[in-house]
Amino acid sequence: MFDLELIKSISRPSPTKIVLLVIDGLGGLPRPETGKTELETADTPNLDKLAANGICGLSDPVGRGITPGSAPGHLALFGYDPISFNIGRGALEAVGIDFNLQPGDVAARGNFCTAEKAGLITDRRAGRISTEMCAELCRLLDGQVVENAKIFVQPVREHRFIAVFRGDDLSPDVSDSDPQQLGVTPKIITALSPEAERMAGIANQFVAQAKIILAEYLPANMLLLRGFSQRPHFPSMNEIYKLTPAAIASYPMYQGLARLVGMEALETGTSIEDEFRILEQHYGNHDFFFLHVKGADSAGEDDDFERKVKVIEQVDKALSELISMQPDVIVVSGDHSTPALLGGHSWHPVPVLLCSEWCRTDRIKEFSEAACISGGLGRFPATQIMPLAMANALKFSKFGA
Amino acid sequence: MFDLELIKSISRPSPTKIVLLVIDGLGGLPRPETGKTELETADTPNLDKLAANGICGLSDPVGRGITPGSAPGHLALFGYDPISFNIGRGALEAVGIDFNLQPGDVAARGNFCTAEKAGLITDRRAGRISTEMCAELCRLLDGQVVENAKIFVQPVREHRFIAVFRGDDLSPDVSDSDPQQLGVTPKIITALSPEAERMAGIANQFVAQAKIILAEYLPANMLLLRGFSQRPHFPSMNEIYKLTPAAIASYPMYQGLARLVGMEALETGTSIEDEFRILEQHYGNHDFFFLHVKGADSAGEDDDFERKVKVIEQVDKALSELISMQPDVIVVSGDHSTPALLGGHSWHPVPVLLCSEWCRTDRIKEFSEAACISGGLGRFPATQIMPLAMANALKFSKFGA
Repeated sequence: MFDLELIKSISRPSPTKIVLLVIDGLGGLPRPETGKTELETADTPNLDKLAANGICGLSDPVGRGITPGSAPGHLALFGYDPISFNIGRGALEAVGIDFNLQPGDVAARGNFCTAEKAGLITDRRAGRISTEMCAELCRLLDGQVVENAKIFVQPVREHRFIAVFRGDDLSPDVSDSDPQQLGVTPKIITALSPEAERMAGIANQFVAQAKIILAEYLPANMLLLRGFSQRPHFPSMNEIYKLTPAAIASYPMYQGLARLVGMEALETGTSIEDEFRILEQHYGNHDFFFLHVKGADSAGEDDDFERKVKVIEQVDKALSELISMQPDVIVVSGDHSTPALLGGHSWHPVPVLLCSEWCRTDRIKEFSEAACISGGLGRFPATQIMPLAMANALKFSKFGA
Repeated sequence: MFDLELIKSISRPSPTKIVLLVIDGLGGLPRPETGKTELETADTPNLDKLAANGICGLSDPVGRGITPGSAPGHLALFGYDPISFNIGRGALEAVGIDFNLQPGDVAARGNFCTAEKAGLITDRRAGRISTEMCAELCRLLDGQVVENAKIFVQPVREHRFIAVFRGDDLSPDVSDSDPQQLGVTPKIITALSPEAERMAGIANQFVAQAKIILAEYLPANMLLLRGFSQRPHFPSMNEIYKLTPAAIASYPMYQGLARLVGMEALETGTSIEDEFRILEQHYGNHDFFFLHVKGADSAGEDDDFERKVKVIEQVDKALSELISMQPDVIVVSGDHSTPALLGGHSWHPVPVLLCSEWCRTDRIKEFSEAACISGGLGRFPATQIMPLAMANALKFSKFGA
């Protein structure tokens, strides 16, 4: 639609404040018994008040029919075209645990897994071993050197870890070893371009050594690597929007994403109340806050309709205090839909509400999927949420003479 | 928005089934006496039921204000950007009659026409001569060789035929001889680029010989050529969507279009009931069906409001059986609007309904132009219908980490 250069050219600093509240996986599907989605089932007086005073709509994070991963979903919310601003899984996980990924490093996402005697995979997640066990196994593998490349192995959570390869001439252009299915052996990692031969060789040697080291650690007696990638360079939100943005997110991956676009990740506890408290404490220090609530997505992924309803109600309660602080612009949306009925991310458009003194309110009185269809924001790409927020905060100057 | 490469990367084969029902020229304009369009006038209990259970919207085949021909209208429905995936009229007609158009061939669409003594055109369609007469005339012209290029002349329907030029160094970059008006002589065919000089010369010689041969066959004593073009190479729907698609269309041109994107064109009778019967018979063999109903467009082109209403009602009746077969996704739309009041294709957006278990239904209870304005699909480009159908059939994996 329009590019970041245009946005950059009209953005100007100002003391007004924007709060972007992201309820991860917000959008849902109606439960057949009631015909109501999670958001429509939840009792949300504060969200409804914001909707009544604000303007609503439905947004597509990537495009109609496209189910976004967490990274494209959030990048779109921050105003970055999620197709051209791509980020690999390995780099994303590394950034997520605050690993200091340097230029030239190649990161892979790893799973500990279970293999039977002949090497066939029987569990791609090694029975979801504990995070402590994962950390112990990572210590065994960490720090190896293969062909002058150093390999860092760091735990993420449960069976998940990262492997970061640091050395000269490493290319991320190699295939995964993770076959994404059971009953087969891990795949040989192959170079997808001639420059990546060295990387493929090193990665395969690392895997071979790991197999020996892990042999006695059933159920985590093997590992799988995927998403080899490097840290991308994205222009910062300060460059683009002239903001001093802060992120409040209890999950590492979202902190990592926020840092990739130049936000300061504030330390926070894990509860929704913790996150809102941190926002209040730092309210004077930033002009943009991204507050991320993970629980709605997790509940959706667990097929737990009721729990997702509760998370939304909890957010609604926490909003009272924020509303009383009167930020110039409040935006509430999600990075994608996660209907409990589907048990995973989905392609359905996400409800958006924007409340500001200048929003030109519509007739919507409740924040829900069904109501947002008729909202004044219409149906639009999520990348346009930030420009809308900036405009409503009077942080944009006129375009053109 | 997003390109076919992205779609390709997330498409995966699955046993779910999609039926795309295209009511050619579906969209209409309200008759002043009733204020209702053809679709709104028709009694359509099945379409209304699908709308009530599904989600509706309005789509633009090419763009707001643009009246599409049949080819761009259908290519958009199949998910191909109709501006970059262009196909000339000659190639389209050739493919439509299943002529084996080879690389290097140049095809032109032909009309037999009537010229008076001085050569001025008095009827661009030669009084719509019978298809049999057309075939007889084509036999007289078929098989000529001009400057080592062989010219195939094959009947299409009534006054319409194709001329295919086969030989070395033929370029389609030449102008039409058809002046698209009466009272003038056919135009000299001219090269639009230097490489096309040979083609223009051959085509003009062919026209000159045809004039002599046809002289005694009034009212078909002359011919007009237009739309010189070559067979385009499009990626197949199997490549893009991993589907095994089938087309059920009684008109050759739509079979041809379907074949261009790799669909298998199933043999069918000409009635709507025949077409639905073929769908049922082949239901087990394909995961995607394009079913094309021509009658609504023909009625619209003939200014016949009542007949268009009847065709829509006939489709509605035939739908009962299809609905009872419970395809995972049913999409009903048109390739463009053909309002009987205008008597031709138009730029008006086309009603779309999509019904699936996962569609997140909206509040629309009837399938009509007016109701679709407030539908949950909103207003959107027709190229996004296929991604939506794929998503609802759970044939897309997640995009991005």
